Amino acid sequence: MRTKKMWELTWPEVQEAVEGGFGIMIPVGAVEQHGYHLPLATDFLIPTELCLAIAEKTDMLVAPPVAYGTNSRPQSGGGQGFVGTTSIGGITFIHQVEELIREFIRHGFKKVVLFNWHMENSNFLYEAAFRATERGTRSDIKVLIMETPFDSFDEETMEFLYPDGFPGWGVEHAAMFETAILLHIAPELVMMDRAVDDGPKQCTFYDVLPIEDRFTTKSGSLWKATLATKEKGERIWKELLKTLIPIVRDECK
Amino acid sequence: MRTKKMWELTWPEVQEAVEGGFGIMIPVGAVEQHGYHLPLATDFLIPTELCLAIAEKTDMLVAPPVAYGTNSRPQSGGGQGFVGTTSIGGITFIHQVEELIREFIRHGFKKVVLFNWHMENSNFLYEAAFRATERGTRSDIKVLIMETPFDSFDEETMEFLYPDGFPGWGVEHAAMFETAILLHIAPELVMMDRAVDDGPKQCTFYDVLPIEDRFTTKSGSLWKATLATKEKGERIWKELLKTLIPIVRDECK
Amino acid sequence: MRTKKMWELTWPEVQEAVEGGFGIMIPVGAVEQHGYHLPLATDFLIPTELCLAIAEKTDMLVAPPVAYGTNSRPQSGGGQGFVGTTSIGGITFIHQVEELIREFIRHGFKKVVLFNWHMENSNFLYEAAFRATERGTRSDIKVLIMETPFDSFDEETMEFLYPDGFPGWGVEHAAMFETAILLHIAPELVMMDRAVDDGPKQCTFYDVLPIEDRFTTKSGSLWKATLATKEKGERIWKELLKTLIPIVRDECK
Amino acid sequence: MRTKKMWELTWPEVQEAVEGGFGIMIPVGAVEQHGYHLPLATDFLIPTELCLAIAEKTDMLVAPPVAYGTNSRPQSGGGQGFVGTTSIGGITFIHQVEELIREFIRHGFKKVVLFNWHMENSNFLYEAAFRATERGTRSDIKVLIMETPFDSFDEETMEFLYPDGFPGWGVEHAAMFETAILLHIAPELVMMDRAVDDGPKQCTFYDVLPIEDRFTTKSGSLWKATLATKEKGERIWKELLKTLIPIVRDECK
Amino acid sequence: MRTKKMWELTWPEVQEAVEGGFGIMIPVGAVEQHGYHLPLATDFLIPTELCLAIAEKTDMLVAPPVAYGTNSRPQSGGGQGFVGTTSIGGITFIHQVEELIREFIRHGFKKVVLFNWHMENSNFLYEAAFRATERGTRSDIKVLIMETPFDSFDEETMEFLYPDGFPGWGVEHAAMFETAILLHIAPELVMMDRAVDDGPKQCTFYDVLPIEDRFTTKSGSLWKATLATKEKGERIWKELLKTLIPIVRDECK
Amino acid sequence: MRTKKMWELTWPEVQEAVEGGFGIMIPVGAVEQHGYHLPLATDFLIPTELCLAIAEKTDMLVAPPVAYGTNSRPQSGGGQGFVGTTSIGGITFIHQVEELIREFIRHGFKKVVLFNWHMENSNFLYEAAFRATERGTRSDIKVLIMETPFDSFDEETMEFLYPDGFPGWGVEHAAMFETAILLHIAPELVMMDRAVDDGPKQCTFYDVLPIEDRFTTKSGSLWKATLATKEKGERIWKELLKTLIPIVRDECK
Repeated sequence: MRTKKMWELTWPEVQEAVEGGFGIMIPVGAVEQHGYHLPLATDFLIPTELCLAIAEKTDMLVAPPVAYGTNSRPQSGGGQGFVGTTSIGGITFIHQVEELIREFIRHGFKKVVLFNWHMENSNFLYEAAFRATERGTRSDIKVLIMETPFDSFDEETMEFLYPDGFPGWGVEHAAMFETAILLHIAPELVMMDRAVDDGPKQCTFYDVLPIEDRFTTKSGSLWKATLATKEKGERIWKELLKTLIPIVRDECK
Repeated sequence: MRTKKMWELTWPEVQEAVEGGFGIMIPVGAVEQHGYHLPLATDFLIPTELCLAIAEKTDMLVAPPVAYGTNSRPQSGGGQGFVGTTSIGGITFIHQVEELIREFIRHGFKKVVLFNWHMENSNFLYEAAFRATERGTRSDIKVLIMETPFDSFDEETMEFLYPDGFPGWGVEHAAMFETAILLHIAPELVMMDRAVDDGPKQCTFYDVLPIEDRFTTKSGSLWKATLATKEKGERIWKELLKTLIPIVRDECK
Repeated sequence: MRTKKMWELTWPEVQEAVEGGFGIMIPVGAVEQHGYHLPLATDFLIPTELCLAIAEKTDMLVAPPVAYGTNSRPQSGGGQGFVGTTSIGGITFIHQVEELIREFIRHGFKKVVLFNWHMENSNFLYEAAFRATERGTRSDIKVLIMETPFDSFDEETMEFLYPDGFPGWGVEHAAMFETAILLHIAPELVMMDRAVDDGPKQCTFYDVLPIEDRFTTKSGSLWKATLATKEKGERIWKELLKTLIPIVRDECK
Repeated sequence: MRTKKMWELTWPEVQEAVEGGFGIMIPVGAVEQHGYHLPLATDFLIPTELCLAIAEKTDMLVAPPVAYGTNSRPQSGGGQGFVGTTSIGGITFIHQVEELIREFIRHGFKKVVLFNWHMENSNFLYEAAFRATERGTRSDIKVLIMETPFDSFDEETMEFLYPDGFPGWGVEHAAMFETAILLHIAPELVMMDRAVDDGPKQCTFYDVLPIEDRFTTKSGSLWKATLATKEKGERIWKELLKTLIPIVRDECK
Repeated sequence: MRTKKMWELTWPEVQEAVEGGFGIMIPVGAVEQHGYHLPLATDFLIPTELCLAIAEKTDMLVAPPVAYGTNSRPQSGGGQGFVGTTSIGGITFIHQVEELIREFIRHGFKKVVLFNWHMENSNFLYEAAFRATERGTRSDIKVLIMETPFDSFDEETMEFLYPDGFPGWGVEHAAMFETAILLHIAPELVMMDRAVDDGPKQCTFYDVLPIEDRFTTKSGSLWKATLATKEKGERIWKELLKTLIPIVRDECK
Repeated sequence: MRTKKMWELTWPEVQEAVEGGFGIMIPVGAVEQHGYHLPLATDFLIPTELCLAIAEKTDMLVAPPVAYGTNSRPQSGGGQGFVGTTSIGGITFIHQVEELIREFIRHGFKKVVLFNWHMENSNFLYEAAFRATERGTRSDIKVLIMETPFDSFDEETMEFLYPDGFPGWGVEHAAMFETAILLHIAPELVMMDRAVDDGPKQCTFYDVLPIEDRFTTKSGSLWKATLATKEKGERIWKELLKTLIPIVRDECK
């Protein structure tokens, strides 16, 4: 394959890939505030780059990303109060992803990986896959609904990333983790001098609407962005790929 | 109030509650397989009983439960492969909950608590609340989207519940936790002699459709149901209420 | 069967029922004002109890009721003006019932009875059944869309129930008929001392929106609730079951 | 007004009517089998002609009819088994009527009459009106949802129409009643020599899907079409208008 | 066939037509302002009459027209600012046409022609046909999505119609072309004395919302209506049929 | 502004742009076959690059493109038969664009330009804008629905582009025009050695479903791709911008 970016291929090249047994990965993200220092694209850039890196090592193509994700929740990404966060409703999102999967099935792909980086998309993605596979009954197709394998990091890695203690994944929005990744994959898009350490006054197991200030932050970062370094980003990337590449290779062979 | 069950009240009594500043709690669950020994109703019985117990101590009414929940996921509840699991699609679920919230707003309630026990409902519930509050912009109403406060248990409680180690909440479906609760609130519905210890061959951070056996179990229990006791159920109940009652009281005053 | 309440069964018990040729009944009702003296639950309590009584004598299970019904019409139940009446839109209702029928078909049930007590649900229920059966073309399944067999009462029964004359079924909302039934099946939920005789100023063959007072009543009862007695309730119940049991048995064998 | 047919007017003429306080009537029907002798158009021809006759005597315009109605039910019109019966789903129907009402409100009409001749449209029509009036809360508009005033005929008229006994309105599909009306308003469309007397083997209070022969008829007429005469048609028409004209005049003034 | 108007036939006659290999044409139009002098019905009258004229010469029936079309665009028909223009949304329109096509397929028709006169319906009609044919994959049915063959006029005809120059089809709304056609097919509906020559201040390749006066006209005619004559109408009609009849005959044989 | 790509900005930068009176352009395209030699991305690359070029000279930001467009039509882009063409349905597309416009309105943008390069999106885009602006009635916002200004080329340009004659815009899919543009803006994505001259056997004013070979081409190019040169691409680009920049500047000031 000339490239793994499906969108840069011609249709006969896609057909060739299908006939060669390739699968397809769909990066799914969001256009969402990521603090004072990260671009709105953060959530769709990361899964796109991850998919491309995985595709380099596997028989997979990467589809154009689903850039616009579902509504942000106050305690995950700040909610629909920030200017710049641009979301679609969950129902539209389900229909869109369902129809895309149906198209990839029509093309002849037998393995479809939905790779999601925006937590709020989660149940909607599963619903889309469930619908596109006729309520999970099509036996000629295999769909993986995949989110970030956070829990796959070993102790040593966690120690390297969080020497002063791990705050929980819940607050890792526009904070150390995502900043570090962007410093690795798109450093020109990180305004590191504007990065701040922030955090909501209150973290709860429930959400409240309308959004109240106590549950979110002024900056949009939910934890310490200044702790990010390029080295941490490299390490995260390497660890993620170490987990993801064999899984995609095995599940999609 | 004669009773906190809104459905057993007459309409003038509901009006009186509204005028008295009461809020409303909507228990949200599922009709879903819960192993060889628990009833399909488990996921709507528990939140209904919890809401009623909370309402006893607060100025809240309890609405008829949303019994039918969204599609089950393979690694959360076994997925849509089990006979008995009876679900509605996420889109219909969103519309239903949105319309119910709009009705409670019409009645005059200023505080609406969605109390959910079925993990798969989560993003859909938030979307429903977001839509019903005009994209989170209505300032005259407050909606809480609340799930189980698992993380609120202290170390001593966890030690009491899991003396031999905690397997993670992910596998606590139809296992120790829910069985213990039902032994406390509805022992007549527990076929304890049929309870088994089970678990999926493979636990992953991704889901696969169509469902494959390796990700789910034969029994439907995802961990050890036999470890449940009535005493553990009482303890869980007490701890949950200890957390929930003050939160509902404070947020809905 | 240990019980005919499907929701109290375990999934293997439901599977056993399916394999034994059982059918399934879905009680469909509403959460709707029923005057000064009857609970909001009236319209889902009655069909649930009727279904359970029918199931006692037939090879049928009873599903958790569809408690929330469609919007009330001014001249049938008072319309969407009363506090307490909590309805969902017709479109959501159609989708919900359609998806439930599809699930019961997936379980393997060959006979599905929709038993409805809320007049306003009528056309929507039929549409749901029509859609779930692929526009009425599935030959492997049989769906009954059933409402109350009012016209089955013989002259003697009508004389017993309405010694001073029958006002027409149209006004039998929260009046003699439903009050009598509840006195029989759930007397603890009837505030008989608050029952009144009421009636709309104007009864017409058309409805008007927005709702005007002349078409509905202050109390919510559309006729004489004080005429209800436990004896009438017993008679009604006996007569309804006399009609319904053989029909369900014959149609679902 | 040059004509009461809105569709034959120019837009300035409609504007003039609106400014003159006119209301609008929307005839609603179906394209549905009507036996061996009546045209498929029967159900939209009759309400269109009725509306035009009413409009002659009132300050109302008549909109182009909603010709395609919702799915036919087995015991009302034969169901979706007959060739020729051409229906749309209830959901689409609701949206269509809702959007039409919104347009008429935009034009400035203050009174909208939905005049329906196809029983199966009933609940859907109400839902459409409920939605278009913002859940019945708009106070600047009045919508009438009107069906045939069957019960308005006096005893003498019933005696004239049914000298040998009245079979109930339920079977008056493509039978005496509608045939007589068409003999009066569109005799050239009645193939009287093909009219038959027919009736279903079984009349029940419930419907069954898929459709079974016992509930419908071979011809599509549910009772005796041969009893129709032009004289009966004239009488029916006169009686209907006697009831309808004053109601529309009073409600829409 | 007694008539080609399907709606005036009985159901056995439609069945006979289907068995005889007939196809079906669905006229699709709009209820839309057409200047000071043409009726709102213009856009559904023309395609209905054209279909009937085509059907006279081919084995086709004509279905009741889809009279209400999609929202008008400012530069095509004046947009949703004119009183009288009565449109439905594109989504409802898609569903309606899809469901009608499905019904005609159920009847047994093998050829379905959608004949559209309202430009704004265009993409929606194709989408409806695409959906009704299972994403264009049904091989047992053929659907034609047909609009006016404007470009089929030869030079001589254009010279006859536009001796002083052709302004482009874009402004032929309620102007010479449609006025001439109505003078031919329904002269009694043309208020020729009110016809004006008009035109928008600005014609652009883009549309603007909300509608601004510069893009539309006061009268609703987008060009010169006074240039219409009955003779031009006859010529247009003859030329249109010369093109359309052989196409429908060939494609639907 | 650091960049006009909204997705590379942080949220405070977007807020600053809004406060500075900036408008927003949304590039809308498709993932669609473009012959043997052009990438699937052609239809979303071109409008994105055009928007960025316009934004360089105006106070506009550019949103992430809507990459996936609506279903392709046989005679416009080859239809849904080609492998690689990946589309969403028109209904989902409407909802997606509507919700995006609502989000940009929430951010505070007063001017929204939808810039579309995929013909089949046209009516759906207008519908989305109509809905998002509350049926075109919001006076605080201005939405432009803009397609390619093909007709703006002067005679000299047309002569330069088409020295041997202009075939009509209808066949300029994956042919000279788009190839030339890509040679200018993304030459590395053009496989010029695979470019062919092709054309459908039959060009008609109607579409047929299911797709037949006679209406489309083997290659996917609908005319002569080999006639494209980098120089023509530069000229086209210059001419398009000459037209578009002043329009966007004037309409969005």
